[in-house]
Amino acid sequence: MFEMIASPVKVAHLLMGNKIGPGATVIDATVGNGYDTLFLAEAVGVVGRVYGFDIQAEAIENTKLRLLKEGLLERVLLFHEGHENLAHRVTENIDGIMFNLGYLPGGDHRVITKPSTTIMALEGALKLLKPGGLATVVVYPGHEGGADEAQALDEYVAHLPKNTYSCVKITFVNRSRRSPYVLAIEKAQ
Amino acid sequence: MFEMIASPVKVAHLLMGNKIGPGATVIDATVGNGYDTLFLAEAVGVVGRVYGFDIQAEAIENTKLRLLKEGLLERVLLFHEGHENLAHRVTENIDGIMFNLGYLPGGDHRVITKPSTTIMALEGALKLLKPGGLATVVVYPGHEGGADEAQALDEYVAHLPKNTYSCVKITFVNRSRRSPYVLAIEKAQ
Repeated sequence: MFEMIASPVKVAHLLMGNKIGPGATVIDATVGNGYDTLFLAEAVGVVGRVYGFDIQAEAIENTKLRLLKEGLLERVLLFHEGHENLAHRVTENIDGIMFNLGYLPGGDHRVITKPSTTIMALEGALKLLKPGGLATVVVYPGHEGGADEAQALDEYVAHLPKNTYSCVKITFVNRSRRSPYVLAIEKAQ
Repeated sequence: MFEMIASPVKVAHLLMGNKIGPGATVIDATVGNGYDTLFLAEAVGVVGRVYGFDIQAEAIENTKLRLLKEGLLERVLLFHEGHENLAHRVTENIDGIMFNLGYLPGGDHRVITKPSTTIMALEGALKLLKPGGLATVVVYPGHEGGADEAQALDEYVAHLPKNTYSCVKITFVNRSRRSPYVLAIEKAQ
């Protein structure tokens, strides 16, 4: 029904789509069912590279199938491990990284991303970001534990040095108070 | 230093630039020194149309000169009157509208946009918006009277019906608390 400001995920795609192009190196920190991974794989083109992480085997499997179906699996390196390890696995600098937090839709809702590991992952990702690079985080304050994660992230991002990072919070203001929102962090050039 | 998330004005341009293209009909509700007007005039191409409003003669003059210099004045209809009149002046439906509130940079800082007329203008603009159209508002809570205007706008936008309008507030979270921010409103298709 809405084209551009349809959902936090769409807004994150809009921002990232304006930042990266063919040849980009990017990370999907939480591949989940692979929608962001597919979006990134399309955006980086044949010479680009996507790294994907997920702690759940089901998510890795779903994502692999989705990419195979679209013929894009060869652009993507999938790691079945938590995103807090991404700085150990990815040794090149990146143009962008996307996080989509919370639980796996259709999966076990008790398995959720946690404040400490999410912030560890984001911290590692920001170090990997090239000058001018972009990180997006879709945050879900609504489920149990989600509000704590949201608060921890808000505080972390609010304290990033303003000369190195420009950070916005994008909230949907005419929806319920605990609607998911986007944090976007651009690194200075 | 920042390319994409550099300022509220840049973010508004990013959103509007992803929405409109050649042939679009748009409004600059507050032409000021003409930066948004110029951006819109470039975006709508030779077959598009821009309507511009400002209550200050100085703003209209500055904008006219800027457009003339770029050879784009013929795409723009300028009205030297308050934006609360826009619904009386513009009789066709529009693809987008941009507001940049507060005072005229370099002008008389006592002349500021006011909550009641700003909301009247926004209300009129939303009626003119085509399905799928976009409104952006850059809001300045920092100057005297700015916080009241910001609060009135936040409340107005938070109460727009969610099936007809998707509304986001984009705040710069690692800058001062009273930093300018963006409201963006997309009309359902």
